[in-house]
Amino acid sequence: MPAAPADEGDAPMSKSRVEAFSDGVIAILITIMVLELRAPHGAGLAALRPLLPVFLSYLMSFVYLAIYWNNHHHLFQAVRHVHGSALWANAHLLFWLSLIPFTTSWMGENHFAGAPVALYGVVLLCAGIAYYILSQTLVAHHAKDSPLAIAVGRDEKGKISVVIYAVAIALSRFDARIALALYVLVAVMWLIPDPRIERTLAPPSPPTG
Amino acid sequence: MPAAPADEGDAPMSKSRVEAFSDGVIAILITIMVLELRAPHGAGLAALRPLLPVFLSYLMSFVYLAIYWNNHHHLFQAVRHVHGSALWANAHLLFWLSLIPFTTSWMGENHFAGAPVALYGVVLLCAGIAYYILSQTLVAHHAKDSPLAIAVGRDEKGKISVVIYAVAIALSRFDARIALALYVLVAVMWLIPDPRIERTLAPPSPPTG
Amino acid sequence: MPAAPADEGDAPMSKSRVEAFSDGVIAILITIMVLELRAPHGAGLAALRPLLPVFLSYLMSFVYLAIYWNNHHHLFQAVRHVHGSALWANAHLLFWLSLIPFTTSWMGENHFAGAPVALYGVVLLCAGIAYYILSQTLVAHHAKDSPLAIAVGRDEKGKISVVIYAVAIALSRFDARIALALYVLVAVMWLIPDPRIERTLAPPSPPTG
Amino acid sequence: MPAAPADEGDAPMSKSRVEAFSDGVIAILITIMVLELRAPHGAGLAALRPLLPVFLSYLMSFVYLAIYWNNHHHLFQAVRHVHGSALWANAHLLFWLSLIPFTTSWMGENHFAGAPVALYGVVLLCAGIAYYILSQTLVAHHAKDSPLAIAVGRDEKGKISVVIYAVAIALSRFDARIALALYVLVAVMWLIPDPRIERTLAPPSPPTG
Repeated sequence: MPAAPADEGDAPMSKSRVEAFSDGVIAILITIMVLELRAPHGAGLAALRPLLPVFLSYLMSFVYLAIYWNNHHHLFQAVRHVHGSALWANAHLLFWLSLIPFTTSWMGENHFAGAPVALYGVVLLCAGIAYYILSQTLVAHHAKDSPLAIAVGRDEKGKISVVIYAVAIALSRFDARIALALYVLVAVMWLIPDPRIERTLAPPSPPTG
Repeated sequence: MPAAPADEGDAPMSKSRVEAFSDGVIAILITIMVLELRAPHGAGLAALRPLLPVFLSYLMSFVYLAIYWNNHHHLFQAVRHVHGSALWANAHLLFWLSLIPFTTSWMGENHFAGAPVALYGVVLLCAGIAYYILSQTLVAHHAKDSPLAIAVGRDEKGKISVVIYAVAIALSRFDARIALALYVLVAVMWLIPDPRIERTLAPPSPPTG
Repeated sequence: MPAAPADEGDAPMSKSRVEAFSDGVIAILITIMVLELRAPHGAGLAALRPLLPVFLSYLMSFVYLAIYWNNHHHLFQAVRHVHGSALWANAHLLFWLSLIPFTTSWMGENHFAGAPVALYGVVLLCAGIAYYILSQTLVAHHAKDSPLAIAVGRDEKGKISVVIYAVAIALSRFDARIALALYVLVAVMWLIPDPRIERTLAPPSPPTG
Repeated sequence: MPAAPADEGDAPMSKSRVEAFSDGVIAILITIMVLELRAPHGAGLAALRPLLPVFLSYLMSFVYLAIYWNNHHHLFQAVRHVHGSALWANAHLLFWLSLIPFTTSWMGENHFAGAPVALYGVVLLCAGIAYYILSQTLVAHHAKDSPLAIAVGRDEKGKISVVIYAVAIALSRFDARIALALYVLVAVMWLIPDPRIERTLAPPSPPTG
C-alpha cells in the first residue's frame, strides 16, 4: 500500500490537533478564572472594592496565559512534525498552566500575602521550565537550519524569565510587592513584540489582500 | 531551504488558530453564564419566578456574545494573514468579553439596579472599543482594496454602538430601565442582517449543492 | 483582484468555524453537567445512593446532547456554504441546548417531580423546533437536489419527536413517569441508526485503508 | 451530480470534527478538575497541607486523561473514515471519561478510602472497555492491512490494563494502597513510549525542517 502520500497528509493533522487541544485547555483556563470573580451581594459600586485584589490577580494571570498562548502559537507555527515525546512535553506544560487558576485564586483572596505570591511564582517557574523543555524537544526533531530551530534560537528571554521568577520567589519572603513587581516585569518583557521571531516566520514578500 | 511555500501555508494556519482560540473562549463564556442559573430548591413552577431577572440578563448576554462571535467570524472570514499585534488586539477583546459573565451575574442578582447596569454597559463599551481596535489593526496589515478593508469600511455601526453605550451608562444613574432599553436597541441593531458585508464576502456566482 | 479562488476557499472555512463553535458549546454543556454530581461527604457506597436521580438525569441529558451533536455533525457534513441567517439559526439552537444543564439539575435534585420534568420537556421541545428551523434555513440556501436537501428530506423523525415532547409535557401533570418514558423513547428512536442518511452521505465505493 | 469528489473531501472533515469534539470534551474534563482545588482560607503554606490528597488525585487523573488524549490522537491519526457507529462508540468513551472528575473529587476528599478508590477503578475499567470497543469499531470499517488495523493490532496493552483495573478493584476492599499502586502502574505502562505504533505511523523518510 503506498502509504507515503497519506503520511504526508498526517503530519500537519497531528500538529493541528495538538494545537487544538492546547487551545482548548488554555481557553478554558483563561475563562474559568473569572468564576472566582463572584458577584457581590450589594448593588452599590462600593461592594466591588473588596474584589479589587481578586480582579488584579485575574488580570495578571489573564496576561500570562495570553502570553503562553501567543508563544505556543508562534512556536507551533514553525513546527513541521510532532513526535510522541513532544505530546508529553506539551501535556507537562499544560499541567503547570492548569494550576494557575488555583494560585491566582489563593493569591487574590489573601490580598497578595507572602506564601501565595511565592507559590504563584513557583507555578510560573515550573511552567517556564516546561515551555523550555517543550521547545527543546521540538527542536531536537527538526533540522538545525529549520525555521523552528532558528525561531527558538538560544531562547534567552525564556532563560532570563526563569531566573527572575527564582529571584522573585526568594524575595517574596521579605516583601511580596517586590515579587509582584518582578512578575509584572517579566510579563511586560514578553508583551513587547520580538521583531526577531516575527521576521524569521514572516513571508519574504509583502502580503496583498 | 526554500521557505516561501511553507510560509505561504503558514498564514491560514495562523489565522485558523486565532479563530479556534477565540471560538473556545467565547463558547466557554456563553456557556458558563448558565451556571449562574442555579436550580431552585422548590419543585414548583413558582420556585422559578425569582430566577427571572437572572434568566433575562443571561438571555441578553447570550445574544451579545453571539453577536460578537458572528462579527468576529465575519471579520476573520476576510482576513488573509495575522500579525503579532493582531494577536494582542484579539486577546484584549477577549479580556473584556470575559468580564461579561461577572457583570451579567451582578446585574441579574441585583434585579437590574443602577450600578450593576452601568458596569454592564462599561464592559460592553470597552469590548466595543476593543473590537474597533482589533478590526483597525487587521486592516492596517491588508491592502486598501482588500476584501477586509472593504468589509470593515468605516464601521459606522460599531461607532454608533459605542456612543449609545456611553449615553446608556450616563442615564443609568437616573433610570436603569433606559440604559437597558438602549442595550437592547444596540443588540437589535446588530441582529438585523447587514446586506453590505454579506455582499462583499459572498461568492460572485450562485452556489450549487 | 481575482476574488473567486479566495472565496472558494472561504466557504468551507466559514462552515468549519460554525462547526468548531458548536462543538465547543456542546462539549462544554455535556461536561459542565457533571459538576452537579458533587462528591458526597461520606466515604461509603451508601453515600452515593442520594446521587442516583442526579446521575440518571445526567445520563439522559448526556445522551440527548450526544444525539444533537451527532445530528449536527451529519447535517453540516452535507452543508456546502453557510449564510448569516444560518449562523443565527445555529445560535438559536445552542441557546436552547444551553438550558439543558439547568433543567437537568432541577429535575435531578427534585427526584423527577412534575414541574421540573415538564420544563425539561419544554426545553427539549424548543431545541427540537430550533433544530428544524436550522435545517430548513440551511436547505433554503442549497439546491433541491443537493446532498443536504436529500439528507434532510422531510425530517419526519424530527417532527414526530416534537409531537412526542408536547404529549409528554401535557401528561407530566398527571404522572411524570409517563413523560420520562416518552423522553427515553425519543432518545432511543434517535440512537437507532438511520440507514437512509448514512447511505446518502457515504462514498459510493467501498473504502480502503 | 458527481458526488464522489465532494465525498472524498467529506471523510477527513468528518474525522476532524470527531477529533475536535473529543479534544473539547477532554480539554474541559482535564481542566474543570482543578476547580476542586479550592483556595484555602489561610495564607500560610501550612494551609495547603489538607489539599495534598486532592492534589495527588488531580495529578493522577490529569495523567490518565492525558494518556487517553494521546491514545485517541494516535488512533485517529491512522483513521481514514468514520461511520455512525464509531460516533456512538466515541460518545460512549467520553461518557466514562466525563465521570473521572467526580470519582477524582470523591477519592481526594475522602483521603483515598476504599469505596472511592474502588469506584475510581470502576470508571477507569469502563473507560478502558469503551476505548477497546471504539478501536474495534473503527478497525471493522477499515481494511485488514490498513495503517489503523496494524497500529491497533491485538491491543495487548489495553487488555492488560483492563485486567489490572479489575484486580485493583477487588483488592481495594482489603487495602486501597494496593489499588492505587496498580493504577499508577497502568499509567506508567502507558507513559513509556510504544515504538511499535510510532513506527507504523511515522513517515518512511527522515523529516526535514
